[in-house]
Formats: sequence, C-alpha cells, structure tokens
Amino acid sequence: MQIDAERLQYDLERNAQFGLVDVDDGHARTVLTGTDADKRAREYFVSRLREAEMDVRFDAVGNIIGQWVPETANPDSKPVVTGSHLDSVPEGGIFDGPLGVYAGLEAVRAIQDANLPARRPIEIVCFTEEEGQRFGVGALGSAVATESLSIDDAHALTDEHGTTLETALDSIGFLGGGRIRPEEWDSWLELHIEQDTRLESEGLSVGVVTTITGIARCTVSIVGEANHAGTTLMTERTDALAAANTVVHDIESAAIQLSENDAPTAVATVGSLDVSPNAPNVVPGRVDFTVDIRDVSRESMTELVDQVRASLKRVETERGVETSFSLPRHRKPRKMSERCRRAVHEAAMDAGISATDLHSGAAHDTMRLEPLTDVGLLFAPSENGISHNPLEWTDWEDCAKCTSVLASSLFSLSNE
Amino acid sequence: MQIDAERLQYDLERNAQFGLVDVDDGHARTVLTGTDADKRAREYFVSRLREAEMDVRFDAVGNIIGQWVPETANPDSKPVVTGSHLDSVPEGGIFDGPLGVYAGLEAVRAIQDANLPARRPIEIVCFTEEEGQRFGVGALGSAVATESLSIDDAHALTDEHGTTLETALDSIGFLGGGRIRPEEWDSWLELHIEQDTRLESEGLSVGVVTTITGIARCTVSIVGEANHAGTTLMTERTDALAAANTVVHDIESAAIQLSENDAPTAVATVGSLDVSPNAPNVVPGRVDFTVDIRDVSRESMTELVDQVRASLKRVETERGVETSFSLPRHRKPRKMSERCRRAVHEAAMDAGISATDLHSGAAHDTMRLEPLTDVGLLFAPSENGISHNPLEWTDWEDCAKCTSVLASSLFSLSNE
Repeated sequence: MQIDAERLQYDLERNAQFGLVDVDDGHARTVLTGTDADKRAREYFVSRLREAEMDVRFDAVGNIIGQWVPETANPDSKPVVTGSHLDSVPEGGIFDGPLGVYAGLEAVRAIQDANLPARRPIEIVCFTEEEGQRFGVGALGSAVATESLSIDDAHALTDEHGTTLETALDSIGFLGGGRIRPEEWDSWLELHIEQDTRLESEGLSVGVVTTITGIARCTVSIVGEANHAGTTLMTERTDALAAANTVVHDIESAAIQLSENDAPTAVATVGSLDVSPNAPNVVPGRVDFTVDIRDVSRESMTELVDQVRASLKRVETERGVETSFSLPRHRKPRKMSERCRRAVHEAAMDAGISATDLHSGAAHDTMRLEPLTDVGLLFAPSENGISHNPLEWTDWEDCAKCTSVLASSLFSLSNE
Repeated sequence: MQIDAERLQYDLERNAQFGLVDVDDGHARTVLTGTDADKRAREYFVSRLREAEMDVRFDAVGNIIGQWVPETANPDSKPVVTGSHLDSVPEGGIFDGPLGVYAGLEAVRAIQDANLPARRPIEIVCFTEEEGQRFGVGALGSAVATESLSIDDAHALTDEHGTTLETALDSIGFLGGGRIRPEEWDSWLELHIEQDTRLESEGLSVGVVTTITGIARCTVSIVGEANHAGTTLMTERTDALAAANTVVHDIESAAIQLSENDAPTAVATVGSLDVSPNAPNVVPGRVDFTVDIRDVSRESMTELVDQVRASLKRVETERGVETSFSLPRHRKPRKMSERCRRAVHEAAMDAGISATDLHSGAAHDTMRLEPLTDVGLLFAPSENGISHNPLEWTDWEDCAKCTSVLASSLFSLSNE
C-alpha cells in the first residue's frame, strides 16, 4: 500500500522535539509519564488524530485511543487496533515507541487516502508508561487494559518524589475514565524497532515476531564468612564470591549448551551482582545477584531455572555456603497469533518487501494483550541493534516499508 | 618474669572506655585519630607513663614516646623499644593495638618492680593512625618514623571533611616536632593479637612471628559490551562478568594449588568487585575488581601476580574483552630478626609458657621498622580469630602470659 513517507517522517521528527536532549552523537529525548514533554507529545498526537478525522478519548491511566469508523465499516463490528507508546527512557532514542504510534496513524491516513473499503473500525492506541521509568511498572498502560493491574493500584503508584500517577496524569490533562477493552478487539498489531541486529545482518526490512520470550527473574543470595584476606588461609575460607563464581559459570555454561542444541533463543544473564562487604582486604561474606532467563519455550526456561537451583545446591555442599533463591518475576512466553502473522507476511509478499520470522527477546505491550485478542508484532531494523540510547536509529526507508506493510495488514485484517 | 596482671587489665579496661560504643554483644570502641576519644586515650596513656617515671614526648605526627633510663643503663646506649597503637577501626575491639601499648608499659613496670639491672634505656611507642581509618594511610605513624612518608605530606593528609592531620593533632594537643628515629634503636618488639585461630586451635599462648607477609594489591578492569539481556543471544555476547568470572576462578585455583604445594601461607583474594551497569536486564559491560595477594615468599607472590596477568590475556583471546591491570601497592615480605625471635622463644621457655613460630598475614607497624632495626612480633591468641569487631577477645590470662614473655624478652635484649 502507498503511504506518505514524508508525512510519517515529519510526524516522527516533530515528536522527537518533545523532551529533546542535546547530545554530541545521535538523537536523544527524555519523555517521562506526566511531564511537560509527555504533555506536549500527547497533545501533538491528539491533534494529528483529529486532523485524520478520528475520535479521540483517553482512559483512567491516560492511554490514548483514536478511532476511525470507515463509511464502509459496520460500526458495531470489533475493531482492528494498532499502536505502541510515546514515553521513553532517559535520553532514549526517537523510534522506540513513536514509530509504532505514528506508523499506525500513517496507515489509517493511507487507507483513507486510497479510499479502501475497510469493513471494521480501525483504532490507534498510545499506551502510557511502557518503559516503566517514572512509576516503576513496565508496560503499565497495557497492564491496566488487561486488568493485571487495577486502576486504583495504578493511580496510587508513586515516582521517586512521592507524586502519584493519578496526580501526574491530572496535571497534564490526560486523566480520563474507565479502561480500554482489548477483549472487545478483533485483533492488534504493533510495529516496533527490533533492538537487535538480525534484520540488519540479513538485509531484511520487516521482522514478523513468532513469540515474545518469557522472563524468569531469579534473585539469589550466597552467604559465606567474611574474613581477613591476609590471615585466613585458602583452606580456611568460605568465600561467598568464589561460590557465586561457580554458580555464575554454571548458568552461563547451561545457557550456552542449551542454545547450541534445542533452544537457540534461550538466554541467561547475571546482570546485577553485589559483593559484601566489598573491601579489597576482606574475603567476601555475601553476594547477591540476579539471573534473567528468557526463551520462547517454557521448557527450556524451566530447565535453566532448575540448573540455577542445582548449582546452588552444589555450592552449598562443596563450599559450605548458605544460599537462598527466589523467583519474584515469571512471565511465560507469548505466541503471536497465526492469523496476524499470516496477514503481515502476505502484505510484505504482495509489496515485494523482504520479511522473516524472528522472536522478541524484549518485552512489549503486545505480550500483555495476547491472552485477550489476536496479536501480531512487526519489527523494523535497528542500526547496530542499539536502543535506549541516542544512537538508536532506523533508516527512514525502512520506517516507510514497515509502515506500508502495517497498513496493508491492518486493511486485510479489517476485511476478515 | 612476674608482672601485675590486675594492673594490666585495669589499664586495658580503662582504655576501653575511651570511644566506647554500647553494643549488644562484646566490647566496642571507636577511636579515630585526632578525635576527643583519641585525646582522652592518649592523655590517660601519658599519665600512666609519667606515673612509671618515664619521660614523655611526641613527634610531628603525634607518635608518643615514653622513655625509661634505668640506673643500671648507659644512657647513651641504643634503646630497646616496644609498643603498638591506640587507634581503632569504627566499633573495633579493645585489644587490637592497646594490648601492645599497655603490655609494654606493664613490662617496664615489672622490670622496675623487680629491680632488674637493664643495661639499655627502654622506650614505649604509641604509633598514630595504624588503622588508617581517618586519614587513609595505614601504619601512618611508622611510615613517618621510617621516612616512607614525609612529615609535610603526612600533615597535609585530609579526612573526608577536609580536616588535615596537622589540624586534627593540634586540636587535641598532640602536634609535636621532629620524628622518632628507629635507625637509632637497638631493637623493637611488638605484642599484638593474632587475628587468626592458629594459637587457639593448638592451645598455645604465644606466637612468635617469623615473617610478615608481603602484599601485592592488583586492580583489574575488564571491558566487554553492555547489551540487552533479552535480545542478545548467548553467541553474540561479550559479557564482562562472565570473563571476570573466569579470571576470579583462575586466581582462586592458582592460590589453592600453590598453598597445597610449596607455599601453604600464600593467599589471593578478590574482595571487591563492581559490575557496570549492574542492571538485571543488561549484559554486564564492565567489571572492576581487586586482587589481594599475600605470602611470606616473594617468589610465590610473583607467581600469583603472573597468573593474574596470564588469565587476563586468556580472556582477551577467548572472550574478546579488553582488560587492564595495575599494581598500585606492592610490599615485599618482611622477615623478623633472628635475635628478637630467639629472645622471645627463650623467655617463653624459661617461663614454661607454650610458644610457636607462625607468620603474620596482617600488616603491622613492625613491618615498616624492619629495614631499620632488629624487629620482633609476638602474637596473643584471638578467640575465634575475630578482630575489627566488638566480638574480638583475648583471655586475660593470655594477655598476662604474653606480657610476661614480652617483659623478659625486653629485659634480655636490654642486656645484649
């Protein structure tokens, strides 16, 4: 489908001005929920929705919904919905989120311009606080939409200064009522940057996500005995870091082995590790660390979690340390719907645009919507895989190609 | 030699009141250089020196010297000197330091009481800032005495609030002039708690230190590539923590192997390790850590340092990380003099007190004095090896036995 690439670029560049941070290299913006930058980004988006003759409303947590009911549509039929988010991490890039929001709007405008006979209403949603940077809950807007977080609990969330989400949204004029209802949608498509290099390295323009990986976030403590580094002989030590070392090594080995065999997408990461007392002349008495385990398969995630537990048992026996383990966060993998994936692949093929299946290792609002409606997730190439960084970049041509595929896919879903 | 165990205990208990910290278990004191607690501890010590008819002076960094010239001595002969320190770590114990200071005083009083014919002056030194807790340089007083630190540089040292050592000493009335001159001493003996369990586990009362271990303090950085923990496959990672892990493991293995073979006293410790950015969902991009290597043999220390470098080369090749290595602190092992060790062993044997040779893994002022005079270091048993902690404890009976051995040793050195 023909889209207006210049109009899309204009909107994305205009949006990049809100919360702009002047940096030496790249393009940075800081758009945190309920700030002035967020207010201006939202108001511009609303104005552009209205210019496209869409009805605009927002719910109790500030999720913005633009609705277009084509003349060719049955207004009571379930809508096809697309969107993403406009908030960012501090000094984040200009595509992570906004690409999906403005590509959705451009898709609607393209269908309108071409006078194509869409049979369902088409809606665009901008979800609040996807990045979780101010109020600490990632994909907050979709959590409320899917009732995994109540409106009251969401309103009561506070930032580091004690300001509630409710107050922050009210202060920028985006505190609406009720919640959006994904269970009443026909389908959902989100376009997002890949945040990895698979498309770039294969020279492809569109990724069709098969599965969003699950996440098991383990927290581990290992307690040994803090002792004088000079007077405690090697044979007398119960070194918590040496024990943690063994466990971290076991985790890496298990993940590499699994990824070389059954589960190429399985990853395990010890990203955070704190040593106590962390003094050069004291044998470490305690180490706390996290293990982040992700895969498209529940079985391999479970296997890795089991390996962490087994390794902890082993160092208890072999090294005399005490260990503790908890799993405060466990989200299962989410498969994208066959119907949505097919619609995207067909749209790409029709337009002669190269596309491939891949998985998403990162979380997106789409994962929360999966239980309630048919969902699909499209990826645009990320230069060098960089995101959450001013150097994040997606070529304008790729933005246009992906938006075109998104538009065709939405149109085809609206006719099913 | 007969000493007055009650008088010794009285002084140590009195000294324990200065900087006392009320704790649930044990006995805690915080005596930092130049504080009111330090002032009162010093003033009490000076008053007790004077009561024993000793001449008192202090040097430019507040080292206190008490001198006794027996009537039987040639006042121009080189003195036999003993002592330790009165400062503590925050909430430290009551024996680490003060035992050596007050045992020295009790030894002089015992020789006086017994009218023994000492042929040399006997001096007691209380060194300033042995713990390095306020001005950041450990064994500061002996560093100035041995000219490894100039008086001007010492005076200019600042605490965390910018107060200089000179100002702090002046404020408590202990800013004297000049430096004490160990090169003009006949010999030096220090009594200190063991801070380990070798004496306790063998049921012995006195340790005769053979060597104070050297210390090589390495600082290491490993730089990989920080990446998204979800989207970066295992095969795509340059994980700085996984690389550090390999190095930490190599270091532990090398030290264990060495200690099982040629060098039972060799130790290597990774005590401090910092991960960056240290976020659960980010593959670590950088790890900084320290390696503390100690032994009585320079050769085994060199071998361990070489192993650290070799391991770093290995992870550079095998894991594609960049590494850097520096050795900001390198102190060679210090052998105690045969003459002083023999005097202590003979004194213990004469008194029927059990003694053994051992090494010191911890640093003491004695190590700095070694190049300039004959030095000896005695250890008293430490309950459970605990020190720098309110639970630090040495039985009063052991304090008395060690003080008796110290007194006899000083007397015998004064007659050589």
